[in-house]
Amino acid sequence: MLNEDRLFPADQTTRAIARRLYDQIRDLPIVSPHGHTQAGWFTRNQPFPDPVKLFVQPDHYVFRMLYSQGIALEELEIGKETIQDPRKVWRTFASHYYLFRGTPTRLWLDYSFQTLFGLNERLSAANADHYYDVIAEKLATPELLPRALYERFNIEVLATTDSPLDSLADHQAIRSSEWQGRIVPTFRPDPVVDPQFPDFQDNVRALGALTGEDTFTWRGYLRALASRREYFKRLGATATDHGHPTALTEDLGDTSAATLFEQVIKGTAYQADLEIFRGQMLTEMARMSVEDGLVMQIHPGSVRNHNAQLFAKYGRDMGADIPAPTNYVEALRPLLSRFGNERNLTLILFTLDETTYSRELAPLAGHYPCLRLGPPWWFHDSPEGMRRFREMATETAGFYNTVGFNDDTRAFLSIPARHDVARRIDVAFLAELVADHRLEEDEAAEVAHELTVGLVRKAYRL
Amino acid sequence: MLNEDRLFPADQTTRAIARRLYDQIRDLPIVSPHGHTQAGWFTRNQPFPDPVKLFVQPDHYVFRMLYSQGIALEELEIGKETIQDPRKVWRTFASHYYLFRGTPTRLWLDYSFQTLFGLNERLSAANADHYYDVIAEKLATPELLPRALYERFNIEVLATTDSPLDSLADHQAIRSSEWQGRIVPTFRPDPVVDPQFPDFQDNVRALGALTGEDTFTWRGYLRALASRREYFKRLGATATDHGHPTALTEDLGDTSAATLFEQVIKGTAYQADLEIFRGQMLTEMARMSVEDGLVMQIHPGSVRNHNAQLFAKYGRDMGADIPAPTNYVEALRPLLSRFGNERNLTLILFTLDETTYSRELAPLAGHYPCLRLGPPWWFHDSPEGMRRFREMATETAGFYNTVGFNDDTRAFLSIPARHDVARRIDVAFLAELVADHRLEEDEAAEVAHELTVGLVRKAYRL
Amino acid sequence: MLNEDRLFPADQTTRAIARRLYDQIRDLPIVSPHGHTQAGWFTRNQPFPDPVKLFVQPDHYVFRMLYSQGIALEELEIGKETIQDPRKVWRTFASHYYLFRGTPTRLWLDYSFQTLFGLNERLSAANADHYYDVIAEKLATPELLPRALYERFNIEVLATTDSPLDSLADHQAIRSSEWQGRIVPTFRPDPVVDPQFPDFQDNVRALGALTGEDTFTWRGYLRALASRREYFKRLGATATDHGHPTALTEDLGDTSAATLFEQVIKGTAYQADLEIFRGQMLTEMARMSVEDGLVMQIHPGSVRNHNAQLFAKYGRDMGADIPAPTNYVEALRPLLSRFGNERNLTLILFTLDETTYSRELAPLAGHYPCLRLGPPWWFHDSPEGMRRFREMATETAGFYNTVGFNDDTRAFLSIPARHDVARRIDVAFLAELVADHRLEEDEAAEVAHELTVGLVRKAYRL
Repeated sequence: MLNEDRLFPADQTTRAIARRLYDQIRDLPIVSPHGHTQAGWFTRNQPFPDPVKLFVQPDHYVFRMLYSQGIALEELEIGKETIQDPRKVWRTFASHYYLFRGTPTRLWLDYSFQTLFGLNERLSAANADHYYDVIAEKLATPELLPRALYERFNIEVLATTDSPLDSLADHQAIRSSEWQGRIVPTFRPDPVVDPQFPDFQDNVRALGALTGEDTFTWRGYLRALASRREYFKRLGATATDHGHPTALTEDLGDTSAATLFEQVIKGTAYQADLEIFRGQMLTEMARMSVEDGLVMQIHPGSVRNHNAQLFAKYGRDMGADIPAPTNYVEALRPLLSRFGNERNLTLILFTLDETTYSRELAPLAGHYPCLRLGPPWWFHDSPEGMRRFREMATETAGFYNTVGFNDDTRAFLSIPARHDVARRIDVAFLAELVADHRLEEDEAAEVAHELTVGLVRKAYRL
Repeated sequence: MLNEDRLFPADQTTRAIARRLYDQIRDLPIVSPHGHTQAGWFTRNQPFPDPVKLFVQPDHYVFRMLYSQGIALEELEIGKETIQDPRKVWRTFASHYYLFRGTPTRLWLDYSFQTLFGLNERLSAANADHYYDVIAEKLATPELLPRALYERFNIEVLATTDSPLDSLADHQAIRSSEWQGRIVPTFRPDPVVDPQFPDFQDNVRALGALTGEDTFTWRGYLRALASRREYFKRLGATATDHGHPTALTEDLGDTSAATLFEQVIKGTAYQADLEIFRGQMLTEMARMSVEDGLVMQIHPGSVRNHNAQLFAKYGRDMGADIPAPTNYVEALRPLLSRFGNERNLTLILFTLDETTYSRELAPLAGHYPCLRLGPPWWFHDSPEGMRRFREMATETAGFYNTVGFNDDTRAFLSIPARHDVARRIDVAFLAELVADHRLEEDEAAEVAHELTVGLVRKAYRL
Repeated sequence: MLNEDRLFPADQTTRAIARRLYDQIRDLPIVSPHGHTQAGWFTRNQPFPDPVKLFVQPDHYVFRMLYSQGIALEELEIGKETIQDPRKVWRTFASHYYLFRGTPTRLWLDYSFQTLFGLNERLSAANADHYYDVIAEKLATPELLPRALYERFNIEVLATTDSPLDSLADHQAIRSSEWQGRIVPTFRPDPVVDPQFPDFQDNVRALGALTGEDTFTWRGYLRALASRREYFKRLGATATDHGHPTALTEDLGDTSAATLFEQVIKGTAYQADLEIFRGQMLTEMARMSVEDGLVMQIHPGSVRNHNAQLFAKYGRDMGADIPAPTNYVEALRPLLSRFGNERNLTLILFTLDETTYSRELAPLAGHYPCLRLGPPWWFHDSPEGMRRFREMATETAGFYNTVGFNDDTRAFLSIPARHDVARRIDVAFLAELVADHRLEEDEAAEVAHELTVGLVRKAYRL
């Protein structure tokens, strides 16, 4: 199923350039600075469960498409702890595999099926059971245990994303084990800085308990955050991440910020002020980053849980998060006015609004020393999406204000597939620049190396 | 003028794939579920009038371009019932035919000129009279009568777009005739649900007269609408269409809705509430669609009659409707919160704001079971526009959440040309996926068939 | 470094078409109707200064990229009248030349290095000194004096951009000299029509002094503006230019406008009314254009001086102007309602928001007789940017509602490079239309000629 030239330009001369560039980077290690895998997998090193638990249930790319075509989530046993009839769910998935034509999910799955399970025939209703059996059988073998895969995938470092309230016990366990894999946490403070996060007050209380600070005062709250950042750093973290609804930042001044915090924590703040508080917290996080050197990532612009009925029944992360128009120019101004020229700050911006690539993000990143552009995110982490990113961002921001690839995945098995797609699209883009003489091939090879490992190591301080 | 390989990719290998795919769909029937032809043409089956009445006067794509380059509408005799000097108008058009270089209008016209009239030389001032004579002569022949063309075009079904106040007499006449063509109406209630539609109150009154309901009460008004929908269904309608300025929907609850209706119908509602009323009516229409199964189409985002002077002089549809930014994510939420997960609802979304393809529409359609994406609309119904749609929507929504092609035209003669462009662009896109190994050729052929006839029949329940 | 086929399509057949089209326009003269060169260069005809003063210091494309990667402006001696150590600055620039990979700056610089200085080896740390020496030496030769370059570049006309308060002494001097070069001013009234322009009141006072009008009355102010426009026309101006933050226009009526002016000039107007005043002034300028025939250009959508710290230290034009979303449809309505159908008005629209190409600008320009689309501006004046413009605007506006290329540069030496990139991208786009049979090659050749010299002469009345 996997052609050696997949995703390369059709023109033969250009394709040959892409091939040569790819050959120089295909075997480079995977640097994965942002994602949603679980440290516990590597602590326990147990076999991954059955095909459905692995490929269908946790992957909202997969079940959102099935759901959009009228397959009930019940039919897929989504949300169930134990799957009653995994083989039946697998058959449903297999017989609808054609729905993924033209999507990146298809590319990722085919890659995993073939490289990990030796399955070379396209998945369909006809071979569903065969697939199921082969996958189930191989998952139990030592070669497919988490640590073995980490090595087989040639991973250099793998970052998880964690709540400030997380004890990071699994990360500690890995560090004290003899296993040499590098799994690092990422500080994602949404549960304690977003007043609209479920159980916000309880979270802030728990943060106090963890740190011995009075987190119901502004000073104590900030100290507690700094203290957890420090704790994450000690366990290997090099970055923070922030998933706010918008990119709004604020710079209220300390007195106003303290007053606002008081209202927020008491639950007496106006609805509109909650967004201002989140904005203020981004600037506070930037201030702390200038001090402790943690790289900052902002992932704004997702309207979460758009499907009210589904949310009521199944809760978060049910494939119903929808992007919205996102502004950066005015939104980031307060933060950038304070810290935009700081040498010790790295602020990586992501977007779900592709119109901002050429209009806002590339011009901002092509100017402010602290800014870098994250790779195409979520729905845009796809061949066409990555191509649009390079076409729209490069001419103003260059390559060197970008930070390589993020796989950003919960699906550990898809990591090599995702990195491979990114590498192929990058060399395809570079090959086109070489073919029309915008770049010489030796330069393109250098850039390809940077896009694969150089820029990510540097930007994330790994 | 028409090269067999037109609109296919330049790369020879890819072009050969496109050709093979095209050969498998070129002769499939035309399914036209949305457009603005007139049922009366087929009732009366009279010759189409002269070249100007056919190609210039009714086609705002044509005369807006001429107008933009300084040709007065008077010079084109736009708006006149009888054209004084059609040959002179035709010459003006012919001598400015170069203005259409690079536009889809050019492709459509060349196709009609060559396939229907055997005209193989590019239109220009030099051959204007020859063109005029040949077209005028052939129009009078039996082969170019409406019913003959319907068959020659291999049309399977053709939908018109109709006011709820329309008696649909022509549709009835066709159904009771022995002619086998399938012409179906579409329920477009704008005149009676948009308070800013000309003569809104009179229209609502007429709706009452037609249905025997008291349409000045909320209950009676809703019953009247349901009754006309039922009437349309009996005459073959499978769909409704809604041309609102935005995609706003509301879900006010019955009491508030009734109160708002009372103010609206009395003319005492605030300006801003008129938009809320329209939004409420979309949700009411969705509710009725769940009940009666009519497929719902929303065409938002056009600022109508932008040119005030022209509107004062010539009225509507003078080529001065301009797209505006359109939001879907928040706008559709009320409707989707109520009916988004209904199995019996199909809601087809259109846009004039291409930024929404990848940001909003594909993520929404890739999740909600009721949603499907309509093809590129109006200004975007063009080779580049259709290519952008596939490139931006497919990776998130897949092919199967789209609904094939709409010609959406008033120009009956252009229908095969428009479908042919769409088929060519679709196979060109598929050929590229095959060429870079994202899809295998047998799958691409299946998808091409679906994009041509399968998805449209299913989505529109035809 | 410069391949003859640079920027042409990769496919060999298409490339051959592009080459043939290019051969027919490569030697056409440069028509430069909009830019920021200095008339004084041609009055004095002195050698351009050293490499740093020429290539680094005045070019915010160059130093914004260096700054974004952590190089301090001090290190580049930005803002200094006399450069202390130009060779050191040059070395810094040279050793970071790789940052410009994939950017248009790289294309422009390589072109200048090779064609003007015979430097054929890629700039790098290794050859920095050699570059410096060669450039410094050649700059002193007669062949590189401003007037010699004007002729060598085959410039037909070159427009500068000037304040209404400028005496245009240099323009006068050129006209009274025996030199035959055509350098024309452009009327850019921002300093006297934008109340937020530095020293606005003083500027309006100076306008009064220059014209003998009482510019603190509405009538006198308008007369003074008309009088300066007339003065600019006498010195060759054919156009005005307007750099407002948005495209907002207003049509207040004379009494309200006079009242607003009174508040504005006294400094008592509300903040929000300043934008309304600017909008009113665009309509006033359109009115005067109808009268005096000056072509009007609007360049909206740049958030100026985004980096507050840099602005405080270095002032304007430090590479920190960032585009913002821009609306045209509602914003231009007041002006277009008044003058949109005027035969004697030409209004050229520019944008930094590419989403408006297909959504707003092409539909507007494809309808209103007064409107034309300016070429891709600023960040979008690049191969990908120009390609997107043609792909998104042509199908609705056609080629003939566009106005050819603007180099819009302060960097005189880059003018041929920029025009060459534009010509190559245009023929590449046309070659693709020919290759897939949307256009015949003889037509494409005609269009290429129009895009290079025909449309610009006509639109700018040159």
